[in-house]
Amino acid sequence: MQGVLDIPQELAGIEELLFESLPRVESVFADQLISELPPVDQMCQYIERYRGKMLRPSLVLLCGIAANPDADALLGRGEATKLVTNAHIVCGAVCEMVHMATLVHDDVLDEAEIRRRGQTLNMLKGNETSVILGDYLIASAYELCSSLDSPVPSRIVGNASAVMCTGELLQLHHRNNLSLDKATYIEILERKTAALIGASCELGARSTLGFDQTDHPITEALKDFGRRLGVAFQIQDDVLDLMGTTETVGKSVGKDLEKGKLTFPLIHHLAGASVEQGARSLMLIKKASGGDSSVLPEMITALKDSDSISVTQELAASYVLDAKNALSALPDSAGKSMLELLADAVIKRSF
Amino acid sequence: MQGVLDIPQELAGIEELLFESLPRVESVFADQLISELPPVDQMCQYIERYRGKMLRPSLVLLCGIAANPDADALLGRGEATKLVTNAHIVCGAVCEMVHMATLVHDDVLDEAEIRRRGQTLNMLKGNETSVILGDYLIASAYELCSSLDSPVPSRIVGNASAVMCTGELLQLHHRNNLSLDKATYIEILERKTAALIGASCELGARSTLGFDQTDHPITEALKDFGRRLGVAFQIQDDVLDLMGTTETVGKSVGKDLEKGKLTFPLIHHLAGASVEQGARSLMLIKKASGGDSSVLPEMITALKDSDSISVTQELAASYVLDAKNALSALPDSAGKSMLELLADAVIKRSF
Repeated sequence: MQGVLDIPQELAGIEELLFESLPRVESVFADQLISELPPVDQMCQYIERYRGKMLRPSLVLLCGIAANPDADALLGRGEATKLVTNAHIVCGAVCEMVHMATLVHDDVLDEAEIRRRGQTLNMLKGNETSVILGDYLIASAYELCSSLDSPVPSRIVGNASAVMCTGELLQLHHRNNLSLDKATYIEILERKTAALIGASCELGARSTLGFDQTDHPITEALKDFGRRLGVAFQIQDDVLDLMGTTETVGKSVGKDLEKGKLTFPLIHHLAGASVEQGARSLMLIKKASGGDSSVLPEMITALKDSDSISVTQELAASYVLDAKNALSALPDSAGKSMLELLADAVIKRSF
Repeated sequence: MQGVLDIPQELAGIEELLFESLPRVESVFADQLISELPPVDQMCQYIERYRGKMLRPSLVLLCGIAANPDADALLGRGEATKLVTNAHIVCGAVCEMVHMATLVHDDVLDEAEIRRRGQTLNMLKGNETSVILGDYLIASAYELCSSLDSPVPSRIVGNASAVMCTGELLQLHHRNNLSLDKATYIEILERKTAALIGASCELGARSTLGFDQTDHPITEALKDFGRRLGVAFQIQDDVLDLMGTTETVGKSVGKDLEKGKLTFPLIHHLAGASVEQGARSLMLIKKASGGDSSVLPEMITALKDSDSISVTQELAASYVLDAKNALSALPDSAGKSMLELLADAVIKRSF
């Protein structure tokens, strides 16, 4: 999220710590995937294309710092590196690996042709490689996670991954359901996106406070922060899928409609539309899900005319506000301020 | 493997224990997949179709018993149930879940139309559901495994899963490689099949001896047993893919050739063939991998004429012998005898 964050001078210390730590996460990530088999190493290079915003590792690190009562003192004394332990780095790499596995498998599912400005893995090497490479990422994530002394992080990651899958299954179940309601839409988001983002925040906090501590109020607050932020993040993703251009977003747009996924702008629009407008919009949606992307401009105009885009953006903003409110359980600190900045950036981003 | 085992009277006690414990494994398996979301539960019912021989849970249980120095005494005193702990049941369910996830994903890869006498999941619900359900099985396996107190079983399962994926990737890399050699073929088998079977045996032993014990000679012996047996098992699978009928094997046959996978009968045949016969066989293989299954009978005759089937069966038998030799590190016991019977059954089976 480096490009979107506008970080004030007083947070320079923690910013430096974050941007020194992320390459350590990347290096643990890469080391875990190294194989003594050259063909495996070769195929793993395609995974590089999926390298993204590093949102989840950033949250692990920042929540780890925010959960540390001595963080500001250590930052002030130039002892910032004490704030980031092996557990933080490992958990960051694990969360990014699980996330990347879902991107690789999503591309099989979405038949997406463009992801992160490169041809997607499944177009390059076929669905088979994508399925196995995704599996390899998941397995490697679990192997790495279990290298920690406690089984607790494995429990958190295993559970979040299982919940993610139920979200994907629920989404698939509601494909082409033109009467999908807001509650179900939010439930899908909570499962498929927010669960792992919440787990990232929880893992960061528990890497600091100890994995055996249960129900610690700071951990609970940061987990809530992550879950709410995760919903906001996915709502913004859904807006970008409609309103973005392939060039700025870096992945295929209009794919949700094409795959019969009704996202909130559509749900809001259909709920408030006149009989005539509703009938027209349903027809446009059906055409789009049949692969006819020429109807997208008219659909987007209709969404704008019914304020559905701005209402959706307000919904995302309300989740960001909820997320920041969850942070009120934490004392003020540089870590907390960074999390607030990050939360705002999630809905300001155009990629 | 119940149908293939010819169990003598003196092993009736351990047989009973095994067949009382397997339903406990099945019940932990089913409970782990239960979701509060009806659509998810509904889709999970398709997984039932993949329920198979329960080889891996059987190995967890039997290795757990064989590793227990008091097993025969407890069996004799009618206290057999003390031999099977929650850890054995959980590890059994975890191994079966990981295995089943690979079957679900393999079917996407193989485009197999028949698996376990039912239509495969991917034909029924599309590749998307198969990919996500396989992911759900893997995530659930890890979540379940991390419910144990030690991170060691998660490490073993994570590592075995990652090695399995490298085996699949290696296999994919060598697709349509008509000069695949025996060493690479065996390496693929060791990775894609034997790693998880070895892990099942290791988990059984360590569930009995304690997860913190490292390099215990009994554990090492049982792990070696499993790895060698796993190679034998896959060689037999490869023979059945060529020689079996869909009816007895319960899954599509001739698929290896169709997908350009050179298995040992072919490797042996090509290595010893005359120039003329070699050229003819290469043409048949190319036709078969192009989807022309009408060449299968001629190919199979050629394999028989060059003794390639019997040499392959001898190779499998030599791995079974190696597996049983690994057991010499264990004192004689009912558990050891059952493992020996199971090892023999692996190459006697026709399904």
